[in-house]
Amino acid sequence: MSDNRAVGVFDSGLGGLTCVSRLKDILPHENLIYFGDNARVPYGSRSKETIIEYAKQDVAFVKRHDVKMIIAACGTVSSAVTGMKNFGGDTPFTGVVLPSAAAALRSTRNGIIGVIGTSATIASGAYEKAVKEISPATRTVNTACPLFVPLVENGITDKEDIIVKEAVRRYLYDIKCSGADTLIMGCTHYPHLTEAIREYLGEGVELISSGAAAAEYAKELMEENGLLTDSRAEGELICYTTDSAELFDENAGKFLEKSIKYRVDKISVEELYI
Amino acid sequence: MSDNRAVGVFDSGLGGLTCVSRLKDILPHENLIYFGDNARVPYGSRSKETIIEYAKQDVAFVKRHDVKMIIAACGTVSSAVTGMKNFGGDTPFTGVVLPSAAAALRSTRNGIIGVIGTSATIASGAYEKAVKEISPATRTVNTACPLFVPLVENGITDKEDIIVKEAVRRYLYDIKCSGADTLIMGCTHYPHLTEAIREYLGEGVELISSGAAAAEYAKELMEENGLLTDSRAEGELICYTTDSAELFDENAGKFLEKSIKYRVDKISVEELYI
Repeated sequence: MSDNRAVGVFDSGLGGLTCVSRLKDILPHENLIYFGDNARVPYGSRSKETIIEYAKQDVAFVKRHDVKMIIAACGTVSSAVTGMKNFGGDTPFTGVVLPSAAAALRSTRNGIIGVIGTSATIASGAYEKAVKEISPATRTVNTACPLFVPLVENGITDKEDIIVKEAVRRYLYDIKCSGADTLIMGCTHYPHLTEAIREYLGEGVELISSGAAAAEYAKELMEENGLLTDSRAEGELICYTTDSAELFDENAGKFLEKSIKYRVDKISVEELYI
Repeated sequence: MSDNRAVGVFDSGLGGLTCVSRLKDILPHENLIYFGDNARVPYGSRSKETIIEYAKQDVAFVKRHDVKMIIAACGTVSSAVTGMKNFGGDTPFTGVVLPSAAAALRSTRNGIIGVIGTSATIASGAYEKAVKEISPATRTVNTACPLFVPLVENGITDKEDIIVKEAVRRYLYDIKCSGADTLIMGCTHYPHLTEAIREYLGEGVELISSGAAAAEYAKELMEENGLLTDSRAEGELICYTTDSAELFDENAGKFLEKSIKYRVDKISVEELYI
């Protein structure tokens, strides 16, 4: 059994491209549709009702492209819609929360897991709930890191940079003190701070990239359900953004390896309200 | 001659409330309409075409409330629409750029003016052009400060905070070295960093709040054109936000003195596309 339709991935902005990168590695023959709502990024500081409204529009837009699977590669969206059954309607859907929680539980040896995310994500408690649902005895230490997204978006990620060092120290101090051996980076922007976070927490702590975890989970789900393509050609990546295509091009390189080819079209925010 | 209609003020988010605060001081009897596009804030990292599209929608929304004057209390919008004639249509309109440039030129003694703003604002060169149009011999030193808005929005503004100190030092180093005696804070969020900026630049540098400068300019314009109210009652402040009213309430206090009363209603982003 096979299915040659595309896989749809969306995010508030460009962070979800960390999930796309992983998909290109593990499923090189799949066609991918990526949607970044760059004209309304970031979602992480907005109210839950606005996040859910935007997420519904994002899913509806991706579904217009006849996809076989939808990945919300956005920690904020995934946290807000956790618990809403069948968010993708009749299309298989995953966010990043459950895949990250499962990956963290496979990794931890001492049962202490750190969770970092945007303000909305941490306020939702979604990662904590997902971890405890699978493994009630596991302890999570949860911290919102509202400066991490602006730091990454402005290219301020060097582990020797004073601002980066201080932000990492401030946000991860409690997690470090807790003795956690695994950290869920619950926002798809955060892998850009991997070096700085590793420097502070030490090599012994396993870092889980939520975007990569979602890609691996989606692969398993598609395998189980006979949804993988039987094409042996290299898959295409078509991107859509609500802000200008030029701005997307300028910044996508931070999240996507240079060898990955794509084309990008602009759509109007107005089209999301149709 | 008098006019009892309201004055309309808008911003991408809450920063424009610094302009409202000044209006309440100098024009206590005027009714004010404030519109904050919180569901799409910030504008400063978006493309020029998206900023102009949003600005047109913001103006159209404010005009639905029968206002006699419109103030774009947003450095990013003001910079993007500088040079577009009659942006308010038949309603008198001002941004923050010209008022701030005029105030800086009244203040400077040595003819060197620092300008700070969002990436879009500084890339537009709007403040520099406005200064040089009035006074070609004046020198401006312009720096984008992309971390300042997220710092203010997350309440990280203490002048002793390491991150604040380092961000201020990094962004204002060139301006300090230039010997500028006046600084245009070209984004309505920045007055929250006044203490940290003053500490770094020293007492000798005059800081121009773009929101306050726009309020004073609007007052003069209304005086000249017979547009002030003849009411002696305290003016009302009615706010609209595209995100939730609760979120607006939670955060408005950072920008507005507690004694200022207002009511706030949510409108949908969809209404901006009508």
